Amino acid sequence: MNGERRQFLEQVAALVADVPALAPGEVALVGAGPGDPAMLTLAAVAALCEADVIVHDALVDDRILALAPAAAVLEYAGKRGGKPSAKQADITHRLIAHARTGARVVRLKGGDPFVFGRGGEEVLELSLEGIRFRVVPGLTAGLAGLAAAGIPATLRTVNQAVILATGHAGTGADGLDWRALAATGQPIVLYMAMASLSPIVEALLDGGLAPGTPAAIVASATTGREAVVISTLARLAADAAAAGIDPPAIVAIGGIVAVRERLLGTARLIEAIR
Amino acid sequence: MNGERRQFLEQVAALVADVPALAPGEVALVGAGPGDPAMLTLAAVAALCEADVIVHDALVDDRILALAPAAAVLEYAGKRGGKPSAKQADITHRLIAHARTGARVVRLKGGDPFVFGRGGEEVLELSLEGIRFRVVPGLTAGLAGLAAAGIPATLRTVNQAVILATGHAGTGADGLDWRALAATGQPIVLYMAMASLSPIVEALLDGGLAPGTPAAIVASATTGREAVVISTLARLAADAAAAGIDPPAIVAIGGIVAVRERLLGTARLIEAIR
Repeated sequence: MNGERRQFLEQVAALVADVPALAPGEVALVGAGPGDPAMLTLAAVAALCEADVIVHDALVDDRILALAPAAAVLEYAGKRGGKPSAKQADITHRLIAHARTGARVVRLKGGDPFVFGRGGEEVLELSLEGIRFRVVPGLTAGLAGLAAAGIPATLRTVNQAVILATGHAGTGADGLDWRALAATGQPIVLYMAMASLSPIVEALLDGGLAPGTPAAIVASATTGREAVVISTLARLAADAAAAGIDPPAIVAIGGIVAVRERLLGTARLIEAIR
Repeated sequence: MNGERRQFLEQVAALVADVPALAPGEVALVGAGPGDPAMLTLAAVAALCEADVIVHDALVDDRILALAPAAAVLEYAGKRGGKPSAKQADITHRLIAHARTGARVVRLKGGDPFVFGRGGEEVLELSLEGIRFRVVPGLTAGLAGLAAAGIPATLRTVNQAVILATGHAGTGADGLDWRALAATGQPIVLYMAMASLSPIVEALLDGGLAPGTPAAIVASATTGREAVVISTLARLAADAAAAGIDPPAIVAIGGIVAVRERLLGTARLIEAIR
């Protein structure tokens, strides 16, 4: 380790000393970020290192789980279809049971627990049961994952808003008014949309978005498996299928996608010159 | 330092070893997050510790700037009204000039550089000039600052999307179609909206949002100066004025705001019982 990195650790130690320790019986909902362990916050790492129990989702990198103390219990809480609401209740009950034993509990979720992560539901339950909790936000893939792929969420000449939306309900009655979203003219970033991509695209086209609107898919953002598809709204579903894109993936629709080519086109040029 | 915290440092060292070092002549756009230094990412701290020059905004905590090496040059690049576009060009020119001396340059911004942070504009300029760059995302106040105040960005029973919008253009012709945003029925989180709060609220009411829609302002989120105002859309501007709320502040409008009372109301009850 060089001198700069050693200094880094001293500085980190000073900052982390200010983070309140997890109390026995407390649950910390911790965002693991989009994938890359370097995108963890200091507060997230501090909570992980103090945990007696870590209840984690499927999408959390092994190097992040390795932050747990050797004696900590790691529990997998991934949802694999079937009965999602029953499963969600199970997870919450487990958190409550662990907390009541006096354990320091970390509920570790990919991305940010409060952005399409069911974190709100979990802390409401904890609150009702009188369990002490805290929320440690993480970088959400819909912003940080796009950035890693060279797509800024906003650019003054392009957009004044960005819409983060979940595609999990597709175009069903309990889902979004996609035509109204399209009518805003602002870029849309979709989470969990791969299963319903075609009907959502149809609804956005019906809502008035041009077929040639730039669109991108970023799969497994910031990990070694990251894959990016650049396309247009009309061709997006076909191009994703052709590329064999699997979840987890983020979809971006709007002029911000075109910024990537301006950024990385030049970067590639620079790479070639060097 | 206790054993857990010592273990923490060893773990952090292992993760940070995988972050590529800043190269001479490279510019890193680094997000400082909403305020609390514990909300920095590991990648952000690593970049700061390696910087020869740090060009920073007004809203960055002194404890974060203290991460810089003793020999690093710290330059303040805050914009204080006047001619913002000329100022922005100045900042970009300074980054380019520093990079061309072979310095390792960190451009440190509050929040996330790619979310209403002009980071896209800056990296486009760097790219055109052939300057090597990277983007280190940060937690954006519109999500993490709300979370810290007890307001989740999403809750399944409340919303399927969240709109992040800038209020800096107010209701002028170059600004947003506020009626279209209102018509989505989804919560809206506003950045830089305090100067134009009244006309924006009027436009959202015109767009069909109910006067009683829950609304909140979180000022100086996650810092020691954090202040929260809970109100309704119709009363928001008056309540903010009465509370003496100053920027920087985030405004949240929609059903997610009402979750706060359910969360913290119970927490306060619990506090009283203990």
